[in-house]
Amino acid sequence: MGGGPLKDKILVAIPGKEPTEIIKHLEKKFPDIEITFVSPAPDFTFKDSKNLPISIFKDKTILVTFFSLPPTPEDAPSLDWIHFFSAGTNHVVDHPIYKDTDITLTTSSGVHGPQIAEWVIGTALAHSHNLYNLYERQKEHKWKEEGRRYVVHDLVKQRLGVLGYGSIGRQVARLAKALGMDVIAYTATPKDTPEKRADNGYIVPGTGDPDGEIPSKWYSGLGKEDLHEFLKQDIDILVLTLPLTDDTRHMISTPEFEILSRKHTFISNISRGAIIDQPAMIAALEKGLIRGAAVDVTDPEPLPDDDPLWSAPNTIVTPHVSGNASSYIERAFGVLELNLEKRQKGEPLVNVVNRRRGY
Amino acid sequence: MGGGPLKDKILVAIPGKEPTEIIKHLEKKFPDIEITFVSPAPDFTFKDSKNLPISIFKDKTILVTFFSLPPTPEDAPSLDWIHFFSAGTNHVVDHPIYKDTDITLTTSSGVHGPQIAEWVIGTALAHSHNLYNLYERQKEHKWKEEGRRYVVHDLVKQRLGVLGYGSIGRQVARLAKALGMDVIAYTATPKDTPEKRADNGYIVPGTGDPDGEIPSKWYSGLGKEDLHEFLKQDIDILVLTLPLTDDTRHMISTPEFEILSRKHTFISNISRGAIIDQPAMIAALEKGLIRGAAVDVTDPEPLPDDDPLWSAPNTIVTPHVSGNASSYIERAFGVLELNLEKRQKGEPLVNVVNRRRGY
Repeated sequence: MGGGPLKDKILVAIPGKEPTEIIKHLEKKFPDIEITFVSPAPDFTFKDSKNLPISIFKDKTILVTFFSLPPTPEDAPSLDWIHFFSAGTNHVVDHPIYKDTDITLTTSSGVHGPQIAEWVIGTALAHSHNLYNLYERQKEHKWKEEGRRYVVHDLVKQRLGVLGYGSIGRQVARLAKALGMDVIAYTATPKDTPEKRADNGYIVPGTGDPDGEIPSKWYSGLGKEDLHEFLKQDIDILVLTLPLTDDTRHMISTPEFEILSRKHTFISNISRGAIIDQPAMIAALEKGLIRGAAVDVTDPEPLPDDDPLWSAPNTIVTPHVSGNASSYIERAFGVLELNLEKRQKGEPLVNVVNRRRGY
Repeated sequence: MGGGPLKDKILVAIPGKEPTEIIKHLEKKFPDIEITFVSPAPDFTFKDSKNLPISIFKDKTILVTFFSLPPTPEDAPSLDWIHFFSAGTNHVVDHPIYKDTDITLTTSSGVHGPQIAEWVIGTALAHSHNLYNLYERQKEHKWKEEGRRYVVHDLVKQRLGVLGYGSIGRQVARLAKALGMDVIAYTATPKDTPEKRADNGYIVPGTGDPDGEIPSKWYSGLGKEDLHEFLKQDIDILVLTLPLTDDTRHMISTPEFEILSRKHTFISNISRGAIIDQPAMIAALEKGLIRGAAVDVTDPEPLPDDDPLWSAPNTIVTPHVSGNASSYIERAFGVLELNLEKRQKGEPLVNVVNRRRGY
C-alpha cells in the first residue's frame, strides 16, 4: 500500500458511546482526515438497517470496526484499509472482503500485553509472598499464624521460561528482568538473527521487548525433544503464551511435569486451557511435583463446579479475566493512530493480516 | 582505609549453621584470606564463654556479625573492619568500639530492596486485578460473580510517587518503569546533581536504580508545603519508603489524604506504621477518598484484633513480613564479598557507617 488518498474518510463503527476525546485528538493530529462515528450492535454486519444504511460506505476509504463489514466489496468501492479492533480476524475469514479482495486488513493484536503480563506477575507474587494465607489472617483480624514466619524467596536470579515469545510473553519478560530474573524463550521457529528476534507487531509504547534483547538464551522447535530440552533448563516460573493449535494441544502433560519437577517449577497459563493436559497438571500439583500454578484459562470454560482443579494445592484459578482491559478501546485506537502516521509517511503498516497464513 | 593487610583473617560470628558453600566460594575467590566460622547465640557478645573465648579475636582483622562484638577494642588489637549483617548499627552505638575507635563499620543495608519491592507491586496488583475477590470465587468453585466483568485498568501511563528514594524505593521504581508507569521521587534533600541522584549504598546486582535515572521528576524538602507540592502531582500509587523520625511521624494525615483524593491515590506503606496517621487513613478509606491501601506496617504492632484497620475497605494488611527473606544471609555475604574486592583494590567500601551522622 502506498501513501493512501490525500484526504481519507474514516468510518468508525464500534458498539457503545462515541469516544469523543480520542476522535478529537485524531482529527487534530491528522487535519486532512474526516472521521464519521456510528454505533452498531456488537454483531451488526450492515446487511440492512434504517439507522445505518449501507450507503454510508460509499465514499469511505478506511473502516475501523470489530465485526461490522459492508455486505459486499461493491458496497464500499473506495475502501482500501480495514482496521479491526479485535486481536485476530478468524471471525471474518468467510466474508468476501477477506476472500476476494486485497483490501489491507490490520488487527489490534498486541494491546493486551501489559495487562495480562500484570496478571502473570501479580499471581506469581501472590503465590510466592503467601498473600492468600495473609488475607485469611486479615479477615480473622489475626496478626500472624502461630509460629509461622512467612519467609519468602524473592525472584532475583530465578529463571523465567517463556513458551511463545509474542507481545504478552515479551512484557512478562520485561517485568521479570526488572525483578532481577534470568529469562529464556522458546519459539516455534528459530530466532537466530536480530530481525527474527524483533517484535514486528504493535507494541504498547514503553512496554515489551521490541528488539528481543531480554532472553539470555533462545530455544525453538516443534517436536517433543526440542521442547524437553527447553524445559530442562532449571526454569523457576514457566509462562505459557502461545496459540492453541494441533501442535500445542496438551503439549504440557505428564512427561513434561516430570521434567519440571526437577526444579519444582511454578506454571502460569494465560493462553488456552487445552495447551495443558489438565488432569496431568492436577496430579503433578497433588504430588507436589511443581510448586504451584496460576491459570486464567481452563479446559473446559467455564470450569464446572465439581472440577478438581478448583481445589488443587497451590493453585490460583481465575475465570478468563486477565485480558478484560478498561483501556482496550484507547489502545486499539493507538494501533490505528500509529498506522495512520505510517500511511501518511508511506511506510508499511503494523499488524497487517497475511491472508495466506491466516493471521 | 587503605588496601588492608596482605593476609586478612576473618571471623564470621553469626547464629545458625555454617554457610559452607558461601565460605568455600569466598576462600576460592580470595585465596589470601583465612575465614573462621563460629555460631554464637543471637544475642551473644563475647563477654565470657568457654566455647567462644575472647582470645579468638587476637589475630583477626575482620569481624562479620550481627551483634557479637569483643568486649573492648583491646581484645581485638588487629581488627580494622567490622561488617554487620544488620541494616543498621543502632544496637551497638554505646559499645566502646563504636564510640572510642575508628574501626571501619559497614552494614548490610540495601539487601531488602528486591523482596520488599515485590511485596509493593504484588499487593498493588492484587488490588487492581481483584485477586482476593477472584480467590473467594475459586474457594466457592464458582466461575464468576454474577454480572461482574472484572475489568482492570492496567498501570501503563499511571504515575508512581516514591516518598524516600532509597534501595527499596529504587527497586519499586524499576518495576514500575517496566510496567510502563511514570515515576516521580521525593527526598529530604535536593537531588540536583547526578552524584546526588546516585545510590551509593549496596545494590543487589541487576536491581534498583543505581544512577537515579528512573524518576521523570524529583521533589524534595522537609516542610509541609514541599510535601504537598509533591502529593499534588496526580499520583496513582504512592509508596512510603522512608525512615520514621520526628519529621516523618504522621506526615500523611487528613490534609494529605484530601490532596490524594483528587487522583484517588492507592497508598502502600512498607516503612513504619506511624508515618501514617492511621485513623485519618481509615477515615479516607471509609469515605472512598483513596482507592485503597496496602500496609505491611501498622501503628501499633502487632495490630490489635479490634483495630478498625483490619476491615477498612480496599485495604491489604500484612504483619510486617515483607522483608522476611530466605536469601538474607546470602545477600549479606554479597555485601561482604563486594567490600572484600574493594579492600583488595584499595577502593572505598560501600555501606560505611558515618559515626557522626549515626548510620
